[in-house]
Amino acid sequence: MELLAALSQSSIFTLEFIATIAFAISGVLSALRKRMDIVGICACGFLAAFGGGTLRDVLLDRRPFFWVDHQIVLFGVLAISIGCAALVSLQRLEHGQHWLQIPDAIGLGLFCATGTHLSWIMGQPPIVAIMMGVITGTFGGVLGDLVCNEIPALFRDHRPYAICAAIGGLSYTVFASLDVPSWWAMTACALTTTGLRALAVMFDFTLPSTGRR
Amino acid sequence: MELLAALSQSSIFTLEFIATIAFAISGVLSALRKRMDIVGICACGFLAAFGGGTLRDVLLDRRPFFWVDHQIVLFGVLAISIGCAALVSLQRLEHGQHWLQIPDAIGLGLFCATGTHLSWIMGQPPIVAIMMGVITGTFGGVLGDLVCNEIPALFRDHRPYAICAAIGGLSYTVFASLDVPSWWAMTACALTTTGLRALAVMFDFTLPSTGRR
Amino acid sequence: MELLAALSQSSIFTLEFIATIAFAISGVLSALRKRMDIVGICACGFLAAFGGGTLRDVLLDRRPFFWVDHQIVLFGVLAISIGCAALVSLQRLEHGQHWLQIPDAIGLGLFCATGTHLSWIMGQPPIVAIMMGVITGTFGGVLGDLVCNEIPALFRDHRPYAICAAIGGLSYTVFASLDVPSWWAMTACALTTTGLRALAVMFDFTLPSTGRR
Repeated sequence: MELLAALSQSSIFTLEFIATIAFAISGVLSALRKRMDIVGICACGFLAAFGGGTLRDVLLDRRPFFWVDHQIVLFGVLAISIGCAALVSLQRLEHGQHWLQIPDAIGLGLFCATGTHLSWIMGQPPIVAIMMGVITGTFGGVLGDLVCNEIPALFRDHRPYAICAAIGGLSYTVFASLDVPSWWAMTACALTTTGLRALAVMFDFTLPSTGRR
Repeated sequence: MELLAALSQSSIFTLEFIATIAFAISGVLSALRKRMDIVGICACGFLAAFGGGTLRDVLLDRRPFFWVDHQIVLFGVLAISIGCAALVSLQRLEHGQHWLQIPDAIGLGLFCATGTHLSWIMGQPPIVAIMMGVITGTFGGVLGDLVCNEIPALFRDHRPYAICAAIGGLSYTVFASLDVPSWWAMTACALTTTGLRALAVMFDFTLPSTGRR
Repeated sequence: MELLAALSQSSIFTLEFIATIAFAISGVLSALRKRMDIVGICACGFLAAFGGGTLRDVLLDRRPFFWVDHQIVLFGVLAISIGCAALVSLQRLEHGQHWLQIPDAIGLGLFCATGTHLSWIMGQPPIVAIMMGVITGTFGGVLGDLVCNEIPALFRDHRPYAICAAIGGLSYTVFASLDVPSWWAMTACALTTTGLRALAVMFDFTLPSTGRR
């Protein structure tokens, strides 16, 4: 049983590591498109990878940050940022961008689940826990876009991204209220979020335009 | 006497609720102008409504946030954001924008008073308390504008807004130094701020341009 | 010996004060270029002067902020912002901008040294301490640029600035690991950072462009 727990622990960490790298690569891509220098590329990589979780921790007043506890991830993001900047052409990165959506959807689910869970066990009300889950999963990209002087894609591309995370977070709060083990609720949240996002990408779903203009 | 206190308490809460909704509508308007999707509209509504108070609480290291304690306001802002996005045309909102200035001025006064007061009772020096009051009243709009990729209107429209809040905050520190009950100082701050802002709007007052160019 | 310590203490404070003013003037300059009003000019001055240290303190969960403890600096930045706005023409400021690079380089070194040191004595791992030093020295300018709706110059001008601070921070961690007095490590960090920055400015050094495009 302990072996099982350790195994699932380490596989979750591996998934999170891969997802963080995928988030970082998105940030690096935005920076390369804006012709930033190596400092900007690393900063955008860090922001996209850690921005959401860090903002959540600042709002919840939690320390130490995830990336202080797991320096290996910090070095991984640094390496991938410098590596992308030095070795890969922008065209090739943009060509591969399509494939990034898979680890990105997994990351959205995992980060949303951990964000919602952390707020929930700190006693936050459900709507706040859901917001924190959404922020954890999405605000890295928002901060990355802001630094690149763009309106965040999250806010205007009419694709379901934050909404998948919100529904996933809702499923967490439903399960958690039922007094089942918390990893059930987290699994439900991660699967719902990642599943919905995968469906949205596969069927190229767009949100209805708002407001009568 | 207790009845009176409870009455004034609840009327302040009602005023704050209305002002928060007015702030949120300003944020929603900016988002609609930039043709954001429903996620962006809600995010701008939240930022404009809660950004200032949240930034103040992060700077002062206060928890829980106002919107965690009063979920009703959170749901109100969510409802107004979605409602505006779904039901109201941009033209009609812009037409009504003129009327928003009344609850907006009331909100500026109230938020400036609570922000200054909270810093003051935490023992901050006067200039810091005034800054925190100004931040509470104005930085929601600043954050909303930044997310919309605009230079914040607060910083370049040459209208007295932050300056009204600064003078209001100054009046708080004067009263508070006189050892009168703190709600006197808060009332003076709110009335000064709202009054100056109302005068500035009525007489269409502009700040002198700066620098010899 | 105590006299010596007090003397060096006060000369460091004087240097930091001058450097903070230099940072503030850079912020004021960006604001003037964007034709901001007096509120925007003061906000950009404050952000450029205190943004980096404040962000570091928020991330490290340290209070009170530097500018709460040393109100004299707060008043200094306020006075210089209003003074520049009222008395100096933009042309003259831009003409003098060249000379700002000297106090700016000194400030970069000092702020990087204090930032790295503060993180280090809080027990942060070396890479985090270096990051905090870089953030302290550079993020004021980043926040100022963001508020002016520009991609931060730090991220795209291909000049060594953050990199000088990172190498300086690295030298701090090397010295600090050697168990020498901490002010040795801080001095090494400040001298390395300021020296490298000065060399980079003197020889007009640019970073290699990244990525094969």
